[in-house]
Amino acid sequence: MDKIKIGIVGYGNLGKGVEYALRNASDMELSLIATRRPPEVITPLTSNVKVINIANIYDYIDSIDVMILCGGSATDLSIQGPEISKYFNTVDSFDNHEQIYNYYESICTSVKGSGRTCITSVGWDPGIFSMVRAISEAILPQGKTNTFWGKGVSQGHSDAIRRIKGVKNAVQYTIPNEEIVNTIKLGNSTNATTKEKHIRECYVVLEDNADANYVENTIRTMPNYFANYNTIIHFITEDELLRNHSSIPHGGLVIRNGFTGSNNENKHLLELSLQLDSNPEFTAATLVAFARAAYRMNKEGITGVKTILDVPPSYLSPKSSVELIKEIL
Amino acid sequence: MDKIKIGIVGYGNLGKGVEYALRNASDMELSLIATRRPPEVITPLTSNVKVINIANIYDYIDSIDVMILCGGSATDLSIQGPEISKYFNTVDSFDNHEQIYNYYESICTSVKGSGRTCITSVGWDPGIFSMVRAISEAILPQGKTNTFWGKGVSQGHSDAIRRIKGVKNAVQYTIPNEEIVNTIKLGNSTNATTKEKHIRECYVVLEDNADANYVENTIRTMPNYFANYNTIIHFITEDELLRNHSSIPHGGLVIRNGFTGSNNENKHLLELSLQLDSNPEFTAATLVAFARAAYRMNKEGITGVKTILDVPPSYLSPKSSVELIKEIL
Repeated sequence: MDKIKIGIVGYGNLGKGVEYALRNASDMELSLIATRRPPEVITPLTSNVKVINIANIYDYIDSIDVMILCGGSATDLSIQGPEISKYFNTVDSFDNHEQIYNYYESICTSVKGSGRTCITSVGWDPGIFSMVRAISEAILPQGKTNTFWGKGVSQGHSDAIRRIKGVKNAVQYTIPNEEIVNTIKLGNSTNATTKEKHIRECYVVLEDNADANYVENTIRTMPNYFANYNTIIHFITEDELLRNHSSIPHGGLVIRNGFTGSNNENKHLLELSLQLDSNPEFTAATLVAFARAAYRMNKEGITGVKTILDVPPSYLSPKSSVELIKEIL
Repeated sequence: MDKIKIGIVGYGNLGKGVEYALRNASDMELSLIATRRPPEVITPLTSNVKVINIANIYDYIDSIDVMILCGGSATDLSIQGPEISKYFNTVDSFDNHEQIYNYYESICTSVKGSGRTCITSVGWDPGIFSMVRAISEAILPQGKTNTFWGKGVSQGHSDAIRRIKGVKNAVQYTIPNEEIVNTIKLGNSTNATTKEKHIRECYVVLEDNADANYVENTIRTMPNYFANYNTIIHFITEDELLRNHSSIPHGGLVIRNGFTGSNNENKHLLELSLQLDSNPEFTAATLVAFARAAYRMNKEGITGVKTILDVPPSYLSPKSSVELIKEIL
């Protein structure tokens, strides 16, 4: 059987994660890496992979089954998504929740009439968490869903601290407020806001002669990012930061408290939790499974723009329907 | 908009649960209850519902959109499933894992050429747990999945105890072995068997003058059911049984330990847990959401036999695609 030919657009942490994940997919192969950097500076782990400049991607319209877009939401995907999806089946991890619908619409416009299948906003949130939110709400319409993020590194918040005068380096962890998590797990309701539901813990390396008070105060009062959060700040050495805070873990919880019965007297708790050593590698692994789905849906004539909510679980697996029923159902 | 017209086949705990769940589904309505009992002994909670003998079900082929089959796997569904699915879209909760594929094939045979859509083995296991097993294995092919059942009442095991001479009544709980659950949550592997992974706790009411030693020994040595399990037996009064052990809770855990990276050096833990006050009511709520999906798939020409793995999450929700993207994705 022919393998599904995959192209990676953007070879950072996420792109490398896709390359790793493809090694575990015997029905797929990495054929192409497209990059903005000079192709000769990139040495893929995988043999026989063509590395090209992203400008030349259109030479491969007939030879790539699915392009996995591995750029960031902020600047890369909003340009690349609508452009590349005109010509290729694509999968991406667009994750800016406020912009998701606009992005989705922009892909709809570009895909129209192309016969391509594009799955947007794949990953864990948006992604697997969204699936669990949708399914659990559909099963238990009486109830409430709470999502918690962490413990994990927030790249955006770490960057915001790094931009403060006097800061040499920083890593910020988002941590669920355990007290509120436990309240919900016991089936009690909460009106806690997202800010109350999370703690922000910051590990900060100062420049020589920096004003620690100024840095601390700037962090604590930063609107949207830290103001009104329970914010914990540790000043540490650069050695310690590199030694203890170099990995990119993340995770979180989706909890649905639902009710059934003649008077909603029976309580039900559905909880999905993730603990990820590497946020980009898990997201990449998710992209690869959904690239398989995009390929299959396209072969079956299911075209247009899809989200993770439009994909049957069986399309993600290399196993046949019969194997799935016998081994997994 | 016309509501989706639902028929219930079998009005026991599960059928009543479906009736409760339909009250929370504004796009659906309960139109028919088919029963083996004399129809006049049944008084539905819902007004304007026709109650009929199951033999007359075929008079309603044109007026029911989806039949929800609420019989048990052992004797009811194996007959009713293949028969009713010839003429109706159906959803059922066939849950005898060893017979699932045979049952699926029997429905395939009966549905062939009918243009109907039938979703089999819906519930939580098989069901939501199967979805999570399939998705997590597809995303993290390197790894291992463990499923635990409980704490919850096992109807079959309770029945087996009740059949022992000298036993007046009994309730049996299946409980995950916490030590093994914690081993797996820490990312360590285990070769524990299903028997080692679960404890069986029995609450037994004896007849007057019964031989407690005989009962205890018969339970502990019962092949398949209790032999080789860690079995805990409590003899209690009937009062206590009725007071403390009358509800039908259940639940469980699916845990995927997976690995990614250049040398599988990064660990990931995905866990779904359920704690259900009422096993039949949660299963019923799941059946109702999948009945919505069966109706929609059928309207779109997606016919034949499906399992929970073939259904996109968006088909379960009364929300539109745009609402799902804006509110849940």
